[in-house]
Amino acid sequence: MPGSTFGKLLKISTFGESHGEAIGGVLDGFPAGVKLNLDLVQKQLDRRKPGQSRISTQRKESDTLQILSGIYEGQSTGTPIGFIIPNQDAKSKDYNHLKDNFRPSHADRVLHQKYGHRDYRGGGRSSARETAVRVAAGALVNQIIPQVKIRAYVSSVGGINLDPNKPLDLDRIDDHSTRCPDPEMAQQFEDEILNARKAGDSLGGIITCRIKGVDAGWGEPVFDKLHADLAKAMLSINAVKGFEIGEGFAAAAMKGSEHNDVYSDAGERLTNHAGGVEGGLSTGEEIYFRVAFKPVATIMRDQSGLNKNGEQVNIKGKGRHDPCVVPRAVPIVEGMTALVLADHFLLNRTSKI
Amino acid sequence: MPGSTFGKLLKISTFGESHGEAIGGVLDGFPAGVKLNLDLVQKQLDRRKPGQSRISTQRKESDTLQILSGIYEGQSTGTPIGFIIPNQDAKSKDYNHLKDNFRPSHADRVLHQKYGHRDYRGGGRSSARETAVRVAAGALVNQIIPQVKIRAYVSSVGGINLDPNKPLDLDRIDDHSTRCPDPEMAQQFEDEILNARKAGDSLGGIITCRIKGVDAGWGEPVFDKLHADLAKAMLSINAVKGFEIGEGFAAAAMKGSEHNDVYSDAGERLTNHAGGVEGGLSTGEEIYFRVAFKPVATIMRDQSGLNKNGEQVNIKGKGRHDPCVVPRAVPIVEGMTALVLADHFLLNRTSKI
Amino acid sequence: MPGSTFGKLLKISTFGESHGEAIGGVLDGFPAGVKLNLDLVQKQLDRRKPGQSRISTQRKESDTLQILSGIYEGQSTGTPIGFIIPNQDAKSKDYNHLKDNFRPSHADRVLHQKYGHRDYRGGGRSSARETAVRVAAGALVNQIIPQVKIRAYVSSVGGINLDPNKPLDLDRIDDHSTRCPDPEMAQQFEDEILNARKAGDSLGGIITCRIKGVDAGWGEPVFDKLHADLAKAMLSINAVKGFEIGEGFAAAAMKGSEHNDVYSDAGERLTNHAGGVEGGLSTGEEIYFRVAFKPVATIMRDQSGLNKNGEQVNIKGKGRHDPCVVPRAVPIVEGMTALVLADHFLLNRTSKI
Amino acid sequence: MPGSTFGKLLKISTFGESHGEAIGGVLDGFPAGVKLNLDLVQKQLDRRKPGQSRISTQRKESDTLQILSGIYEGQSTGTPIGFIIPNQDAKSKDYNHLKDNFRPSHADRVLHQKYGHRDYRGGGRSSARETAVRVAAGALVNQIIPQVKIRAYVSSVGGINLDPNKPLDLDRIDDHSTRCPDPEMAQQFEDEILNARKAGDSLGGIITCRIKGVDAGWGEPVFDKLHADLAKAMLSINAVKGFEIGEGFAAAAMKGSEHNDVYSDAGERLTNHAGGVEGGLSTGEEIYFRVAFKPVATIMRDQSGLNKNGEQVNIKGKGRHDPCVVPRAVPIVEGMTALVLADHFLLNRTSKI
Repeated sequence: MPGSTFGKLLKISTFGESHGEAIGGVLDGFPAGVKLNLDLVQKQLDRRKPGQSRISTQRKESDTLQILSGIYEGQSTGTPIGFIIPNQDAKSKDYNHLKDNFRPSHADRVLHQKYGHRDYRGGGRSSARETAVRVAAGALVNQIIPQVKIRAYVSSVGGINLDPNKPLDLDRIDDHSTRCPDPEMAQQFEDEILNARKAGDSLGGIITCRIKGVDAGWGEPVFDKLHADLAKAMLSINAVKGFEIGEGFAAAAMKGSEHNDVYSDAGERLTNHAGGVEGGLSTGEEIYFRVAFKPVATIMRDQSGLNKNGEQVNIKGKGRHDPCVVPRAVPIVEGMTALVLADHFLLNRTSKI
Repeated sequence: MPGSTFGKLLKISTFGESHGEAIGGVLDGFPAGVKLNLDLVQKQLDRRKPGQSRISTQRKESDTLQILSGIYEGQSTGTPIGFIIPNQDAKSKDYNHLKDNFRPSHADRVLHQKYGHRDYRGGGRSSARETAVRVAAGALVNQIIPQVKIRAYVSSVGGINLDPNKPLDLDRIDDHSTRCPDPEMAQQFEDEILNARKAGDSLGGIITCRIKGVDAGWGEPVFDKLHADLAKAMLSINAVKGFEIGEGFAAAAMKGSEHNDVYSDAGERLTNHAGGVEGGLSTGEEIYFRVAFKPVATIMRDQSGLNKNGEQVNIKGKGRHDPCVVPRAVPIVEGMTALVLADHFLLNRTSKI
Repeated sequence: MPGSTFGKLLKISTFGESHGEAIGGVLDGFPAGVKLNLDLVQKQLDRRKPGQSRISTQRKESDTLQILSGIYEGQSTGTPIGFIIPNQDAKSKDYNHLKDNFRPSHADRVLHQKYGHRDYRGGGRSSARETAVRVAAGALVNQIIPQVKIRAYVSSVGGINLDPNKPLDLDRIDDHSTRCPDPEMAQQFEDEILNARKAGDSLGGIITCRIKGVDAGWGEPVFDKLHADLAKAMLSINAVKGFEIGEGFAAAAMKGSEHNDVYSDAGERLTNHAGGVEGGLSTGEEIYFRVAFKPVATIMRDQSGLNKNGEQVNIKGKGRHDPCVVPRAVPIVEGMTALVLADHFLLNRTSKI
Repeated sequence: MPGSTFGKLLKISTFGESHGEAIGGVLDGFPAGVKLNLDLVQKQLDRRKPGQSRISTQRKESDTLQILSGIYEGQSTGTPIGFIIPNQDAKSKDYNHLKDNFRPSHADRVLHQKYGHRDYRGGGRSSARETAVRVAAGALVNQIIPQVKIRAYVSSVGGINLDPNKPLDLDRIDDHSTRCPDPEMAQQFEDEILNARKAGDSLGGIITCRIKGVDAGWGEPVFDKLHADLAKAMLSINAVKGFEIGEGFAAAAMKGSEHNDVYSDAGERLTNHAGGVEGGLSTGEEIYFRVAFKPVATIMRDQSGLNKNGEQVNIKGKGRHDPCVVPRAVPIVEGMTALVLADHFLLNRTSKI
């Protein structure tokens, strides 16, 4: 599994299982001289951590970041930033029934098929607990590019969609536990989630991400297009099944004369259907994209799974899980976005003499 | 621009501008002992090449593959496969008006902002001509995993959608120039495209890709999830704005009890909502995903662009372009898919002792 | 500094400063199913750790390895192995005089020139303390290839050379604190080192490394030749200034008719001048190479250094350092060798169909 | 064989066999805006090409560089520079006797063991012909850093050594076909080589490389030390068996008080025993290193080799080879040096904010 490293010049390598000693990471390629506010990092971790509201899992983790290297007297030194987040409230015995049984739509079975031997407790490496490391890393690298403002929010839950034309105040995202900046819709989302929980079911949802402050020219023209790297970053998050930038799938139904972002008399783009990228490079306009999350596989109902012998077994609905992950996934989307952007910011420094 | 290389163990590095001497690539990491049918490779190139039907651009390119190394007596030797595809029908003077002017929704302006100096002729490196190299590389690496059958087809054009529940004969994809295996819909797509051409406009569309023959366990659990790599591969193709796997965006509106792929009495998954991946690893089921293409930016109408001085200018609708790229993009989607899968096939060989 | 990661398929990313919280690393790409003996790992760390004999520094570090992930029930799971080694006996105030002054032949000045801001305490990231992580990682990955026996020993100290033709018992390397398997020469080396210490001076030396059990065919023919990767690995160790494999520099004075390893009647190589590699690939013969270490820069004498203003300053001989590093560098050479070999072992699995 | 790519930000991927269609490469990550003098590139190729003097092989290759992309109107565009060098004088039938037989000390046997199937003609991929691509790439990237002057020369042939203290005029390297800037020694080297040829034998030698114009701070502190990357680059060249920087192996016999490069009253290093690197970073002083080449394995005498069945066979001394490769290897050493330095120049741009 040489797949726990992300980035080109600025790389994050992560480790850790849900019920192991700790999770953590190494940020290699972090430039020297960045003044770092670690409270901002902890704040992002707190936005992702479990048990923060009545719509999220009751696992209690303080998710306290411990920086081990790379920062001296409040500034990055250019050396790798190593950090860990200890695991605390790991109730591993809740998972004993999974030792020889595979839950439907979880990674249990395929991990067994791939590796033979695995740490099944709490989903092990495939638990979304791993994403806490991404959140920490993202909040650190975002401080390399403080001019870039990354704001994600929940725009759909269980099929109910925020009207895309409704004006939003992005400073109100955290006003509500569902992380939808529209108060009315936020409440509706919460009701849906609580209903699903009551029914022992789970819900999918969509996160929209908007980014301001990216200059023109970040990204590379062929394989490492800025939005291709964003797509990979998003699809690498647990439960994500779709990504679209700008008009996205809707663009497939448009005509060129409708979709093209033509220029005004003043030499400015009149529209931004492209979502802030042209030819794989940032345009300087707002970047926006949407990320689709499937409903969590763990539900509080009996389901038919499989055992190691290939026989159907009944899987009890147990464990501590969110009925809908999107509110807690908001800082994960922001973190992965920051990792992509800071990397391309550095890469872009080498594009010309 | 260190972004013209794709892959981990099996890497393709590409080069070439639309109106330069040639385009080409180097496949590094290709295992020895693969018997190679180069006719299959040329056939895929022919499916992508311009001028193949009345719905595609009239640029004439034979797109003849020249293998320069890595194959001896019909078999791969384990050394890099270098190859070129010469450019022939490059009418560069058609593009003189673009030297100092930027077309709307093209890479012209951002390339200028990023690099200062560029080859503007025919879109240079950002031309879709570059994708011919991907098609050739993909058709070569697909022969490493002959058991894997990758079939892409057009499932939407200009907002008209193929009914996803209609049974399809995937052997009939090439029966019609639009590469939709449903004859009736294929004709409707062609009519739409011809209408758009007549109107000097362009259309977007969607390609669906289905893959059989991938064993369980390909992919890596965290950043290099199989579908994350597929997403990056697809978004790296010119004009692509969205990717979804399995139920994709529709999954965001589903409940866990609906979306989960539970097991039958016989120990088999009853459904495949996941699209063939769980936890980032292939499940052994069919992999399927959809790719959204925006309408081509070049239309045969005057549009307002920008010049180097930042002033609005009129851009004439000139050059040779497809009114809708999706039919020719089918082999590109297949090629990029093959590159991802063959790479993960090799990576998977190292996952356990 | 995106330079703290080593390896292709099997990657170690390291972090940590000499006087920070901890040093540590992440091993990504470690295959599943390897039974791991952590005592062997701790034993290698103990061979490197400071304060183990009267010829080494008096800094006291228990160098206790803490594994945080990737191993479950005594076996690797295929997920990243994260680990830390806490720093304990960091007497940072010993280094206050180095805040604004640069010692001669240390990294102090160039780090200041490169990064502006640095953790100067104890040499920070450039301290040889960082190599403890390499030792731990090497001892872990060696267990992927238990058939490979890597044995390094001290073959020269301060210009006194072990006779290369003298028969050696490689099981006796640790019999003496100088890690020379020839008892007489071991004693002579110790005397030299103690004399140097008394004189407040330091000594260079040479480590020879011999490897058995590598099959034919590991390595890649062009840039990633097995011995090219070994050379990089060795030169990346602090204080190393030279590497030679097989006859090495002596080969430059030989004739082809002398150097060629021709075959016997029985079809076996009569000699192994090549040192176990031909064309960058292992031959199946013993691999052997030599690594030259310069004398440590820190000596217990006053030396003329530089301050931040570019003025000459007197640098007091302070801090805790070995007068000769080669005895403690033996497990570092073995660790880096193991990292190179285990990586190529895995890579070689993908070289043919 | 994913080992035909070299470099981090600035990558060269090479392809090609000795007797195939062509050899070539792709330079990815070349920054835009570099004015390129292709005559300089061809000149370096001419210095490496066969048949240039009576001490080199009689194979005739014009080694004409064909640039296919990445350069427009004499300047780099930031896109990959693809190039080929066609093979012309490939007398493949000279090698028919090697189809089933392995020459001693060649890659023949290990390639067979690794890949099963190989292009044996002229050594295939393991022929030194491949290094022409490195020379071309090196001469291109050197123009990214025109301030850096890389000068390599022959300092030893067959055991006869140029006195290191003798003053040299590095502008006279090409005055003599042996590429030793000392005329007397150059003649002696030639005599030795001609004697070896007469005797049907071959000779080893040493190349010294000196570099001026590298600022302080290039390189990375841990694994990617500047001299570690140089070591790998050098050991990746055919026939190289050793590398040393600064005092190299001689440093192992020195005391710290002798080896340390202390500062003068004027704040300048009084010596440069380190060879221009401290802690893996360039110091701003001259970088110098030495590279040991073994004698070429091909000699014009009968030797005992092996056949595919593992039986000893007589190998005739045939084919066209240099009795001593070091004169022609001078531009290869320079090329690989340039690739390492230009890459680190770009990397260094990202080391601080």
